[in-house]
Amino acid sequence: MAIETTSIHLVTADALLQNWQGHRRLTRRTIEAFPDDKLFQFSVGGMRTFGELALEFISMAVPIVEGVSTGKWIAFEHGKPQTKSELLRLWDTQTEQLNEKFPKIPAARFSEADKAFGQWEMAGLATIQYAIDNEIHHRGQGYVYLRALGIEPPPFWDRN
Amino acid sequence: MAIETTSIHLVTADALLQNWQGHRRLTRRTIEAFPDDKLFQFSVGGMRTFGELALEFISMAVPIVEGVSTGKWIAFEHGKPQTKSELLRLWDTQTEQLNEKFPKIPAARFSEADKAFGQWEMAGLATIQYAIDNEIHHRGQGYVYLRALGIEPPPFWDRN
Repeated sequence: MAIETTSIHLVTADALLQNWQGHRRLTRRTIEAFPDDKLFQFSVGGMRTFGELALEFISMAVPIVEGVSTGKWIAFEHGKPQTKSELLRLWDTQTEQLNEKFPKIPAARFSEADKAFGQWEMAGLATIQYAIDNEIHHRGQGYVYLRALGIEPPPFWDRN
Repeated sequence: MAIETTSIHLVTADALLQNWQGHRRLTRRTIEAFPDDKLFQFSVGGMRTFGELALEFISMAVPIVEGVSTGKWIAFEHGKPQTKSELLRLWDTQTEQLNEKFPKIPAARFSEADKAFGQWEMAGLATIQYAIDNEIHHRGQGYVYLRALGIEPPPFWDRN
């Protein structure tokens, strides 16, 4: 008889962070692939521009790690970057902050339910996974914008 | 001093399957949101139609779970469904098969490296995570197609 293995644990906190940072490297390359005059100007179907979507990722990443870590949910004040270089500067700052703050999340907070930003009640892990999934989802939309502009997006499988 | 918690384990195999099935329910609703005459006909920027993308998910899901489970990598023969109802029938069959086959993956196979379909060398867990991320990525593209068609996509946060 096959042994059911549903209760074995697969993913460490460190692996989750590394997976996220791999996705963030790909998102960074997607931002870079946009021409300067299209990042905050171009979209398809009346949707948000990829610059606006990237700012959403930024408004979620560090604030969510802080919120899961401390229970304090503080909206990120990122000003209004209008250029690719300003956006990438913010991005790179968060890359460092995530590497610093994520490993300090207390173990119990991953499974503890909390109301993220006072609104979404989920375990800490689910809130972090939501941020990652949301980034993958909207980055895929950025790929359509790039294709509509005649630009080849970065390869999806490359996370280095 | 803060205790670093990077080595704690967060995600069980069962939670991973539940997370995937939640995403698959959302993907199913995305398929359903397409008009019959657009699913295999409409796209943006010269990309694949959402029907073709959904067939890619189908060609990955059960074959990957089988491959990770057994080490046998067998391409899925799904014929060429041309309608939404044929596609959804295939989808629902896989939903059941995943629930049956996933819990039988031997624990050691999640961390064991293998060459998926003779080509991509990764640990079993990474191959499964790739299939989920690929589905989120391309489903996001389906959202753009729907918006371009003037159709409201299903809410991203709802996985029930």
